[in-house]
Amino acid sequence: MTTAPVPGSPPPVPAPPPAGRRVSRRAAAVPPSLAEAVEARAAALRAAGTPVTSFTAEPDGTPAPHVLEAARAAAADTASARRPPAGGLPALREAVALATARDSGLSARPADVLVTNGVEQALAEALATLLDPGDEVLLPTPYRPAHADAVRLAGGVPVPVVADEASGYLVSVGQLDAARTPQTRLLLFSSPAEPTGAVQPAEAVAEIGRWALDTGLWVLTDQTHEQLVHGGATAPSLPALVPELQSRCVVVQGVAAGHGTAGWPVGWLLGPADVVAAATAVHTRCSAEAATVAQWAAVAALTGDQSGVAALRADLDRRRQTAVALLRQVPGVACPEPQGGWSLFPSVEALLGHSIAGRTVHSSAELAEVLLDRAHVAVVPGEAFGMPGYLRLSYALTDDELVAGLTRVQQLLGSAG
Amino acid sequence: MTTAPVPGSPPPVPAPPPAGRRVSRRAAAVPPSLAEAVEARAAALRAAGTPVTSFTAEPDGTPAPHVLEAARAAAADTASARRPPAGGLPALREAVALATARDSGLSARPADVLVTNGVEQALAEALATLLDPGDEVLLPTPYRPAHADAVRLAGGVPVPVVADEASGYLVSVGQLDAARTPQTRLLLFSSPAEPTGAVQPAEAVAEIGRWALDTGLWVLTDQTHEQLVHGGATAPSLPALVPELQSRCVVVQGVAAGHGTAGWPVGWLLGPADVVAAATAVHTRCSAEAATVAQWAAVAALTGDQSGVAALRADLDRRRQTAVALLRQVPGVACPEPQGGWSLFPSVEALLGHSIAGRTVHSSAELAEVLLDRAHVAVVPGEAFGMPGYLRLSYALTDDELVAGLTRVQQLLGSAG
Repeated sequence: MTTAPVPGSPPPVPAPPPAGRRVSRRAAAVPPSLAEAVEARAAALRAAGTPVTSFTAEPDGTPAPHVLEAARAAAADTASARRPPAGGLPALREAVALATARDSGLSARPADVLVTNGVEQALAEALATLLDPGDEVLLPTPYRPAHADAVRLAGGVPVPVVADEASGYLVSVGQLDAARTPQTRLLLFSSPAEPTGAVQPAEAVAEIGRWALDTGLWVLTDQTHEQLVHGGATAPSLPALVPELQSRCVVVQGVAAGHGTAGWPVGWLLGPADVVAAATAVHTRCSAEAATVAQWAAVAALTGDQSGVAALRADLDRRRQTAVALLRQVPGVACPEPQGGWSLFPSVEALLGHSIAGRTVHSSAELAEVLLDRAHVAVVPGEAFGMPGYLRLSYALTDDELVAGLTRVQQLLGSAG
Repeated sequence: MTTAPVPGSPPPVPAPPPAGRRVSRRAAAVPPSLAEAVEARAAALRAAGTPVTSFTAEPDGTPAPHVLEAARAAAADTASARRPPAGGLPALREAVALATARDSGLSARPADVLVTNGVEQALAEALATLLDPGDEVLLPTPYRPAHADAVRLAGGVPVPVVADEASGYLVSVGQLDAARTPQTRLLLFSSPAEPTGAVQPAEAVAEIGRWALDTGLWVLTDQTHEQLVHGGATAPSLPALVPELQSRCVVVQGVAAGHGTAGWPVGWLLGPADVVAAATAVHTRCSAEAATVAQWAAVAALTGDQSGVAALRADLDRRRQTAVALLRQVPGVACPEPQGGWSLFPSVEALLGHSIAGRTVHSSAELAEVLLDRAHVAVVPGEAFGMPGYLRLSYALTDDELVAGLTRVQQLLGSAG
């Protein structure tokens, strides 16, 4: 392990390299995580006695009692210490199929589900199963850094398709089609999207699905935040709206974010039988199964009382409104209201070139540094998401932290000259 | 999911393929698992009312009380539901470092450890971090099917280096060197090896390590079964014997097999700081962390009372002696006595071309079919391990199953004409 790099400082240098290459090209090409770098710098400030408000958190509640009880019961049962079937416990695959019908309006058989060690693994295994080296993947941008990294690790080429705040961060079929080449294999679709929280309306989802159908592309749809929608928005599932595409569509999902179980990760992919069979073969060669205790907790989370998700949604919605209202009072910050997810992605382009606390700020990366140093607020610069000129602020904080931190942001940026 | 194929029957056909390629070349190239196929056929026989003795089991005991208690406590603690640090809980990395010093005589810092979701993931991530497409990997053969598959999934080319029962299934430096080409990047070394249970003596391990040092090769050493040695054998760690190689050596290990916790998988890799940093970057992009409940159980397994491992070793040793004695009474079966692991790998070449129960048997795959159909004994043919003409029999069964099953094998094969 090395310490994560600080923005603006050189990337970490491997230990003294003896003659020749030491790590593979794909491993060497994984970019340092800017979010980790910001967090490491915040941790250093905290260690030096400065309280820092981190606008980098993911929703991280406490599991509901029935979820805790399922985990406790599984951990106390020696039967759960035995190896589960490849692809997941039958009870979990059944629960996933039922929850998918309930939450996404998508009918799936338990046999169409591959359970994985978190949604990251579902994504990586779906990409390994679908991409050959050099295949291009259309990536609506700003993108999740993990999505771009996973595409590259699978040998694919991420092709950013940029949509800024003017379009509500929503790519159009026209933009996607303009980015398409003979090498394009796949569209990686998310709604709500990270980091913008943008939610594609049903007619746009259907249009994108029909375009994929007509062009012969595959769609990998990350539905992780499907239920975190606000203000009456809905985030329809693409393969539910365009059933003809189901033979060329893979869905990835997980339970962690909405149920407070990030430490007991369970994800899954579901798709056509031949793809799930191939992904299962890949999966069993590169991972053990997700821990049974986590699988049983996921069964409880999916089949039990869902009021925890509704409560999380209400908390996030309130914080979203607080955060948007406070940020909109800052001159030079343009902050659309997201309809989903748990973060804001304001433009700060109007602030670039200005002097803040005595420092002329030329990029969002520099602005993030100034915010950390002077307002003691940790935010991730847009550079991490393929969109310089923006900042990503999670609002999955306590209400008090949110107000205190954003008030310091207001005070600092209000002084820009 | 599809049903695993039956040996001799055609491979599973994907769902009706629309125009064009559907899965990636690497996914399509993962061979069907012969072990799964044998188990599926055994399950079908059982479902039809025929009791079958499966010589395919892995050691799968019950966790020790202190391990169960650690899992139970973690599952009851909402703190453990939060996302653990990338690379593993500090307490587990510390425990791995201490256990590595105690069990392998190898000194490692906690920072040199990357915790993974089972040893399979440690192996896959080590290979993704070390191999570029086309890199050749020397694979002492018979090999673990999972090793060959993982090399191919990482884009590498497995190069089998065959050692049969005449050499005790132990490859020599001369053989390895003869297989080396300018494309050779890595030796994948295991001792005890699967499926043979062969254990390289210390002087041979040191000689192989010095050869890797001189030739500039990397070594990936799978020490999963390091503690499962019998009859006074020891399985020294290669990088402990040749410390100069530590800058080019990665160790993979795990807790599952020896501690009865296969359902709560925890593995790890340890190696030079730059490789572990690169592997951690790969890891965080393609997986969530291992479930915290499993990580706390692993801490208890590694740091607590180790008498369970000694008891497992004693059980396996007794069964090993029983199994070898019974198999050696079968004409045409040549069964060396393994010094480690939990399976036998007898040659059955002398039986090929003969008639057994009215069927002329031309290959070990056919012999495995006849054994299942006529003696109701499930064994995996050597074809799965790159060695036709052999059978793999796990002896991690109860003593009664072992004797009953092998008695039926004796009766059937004793009738060969």
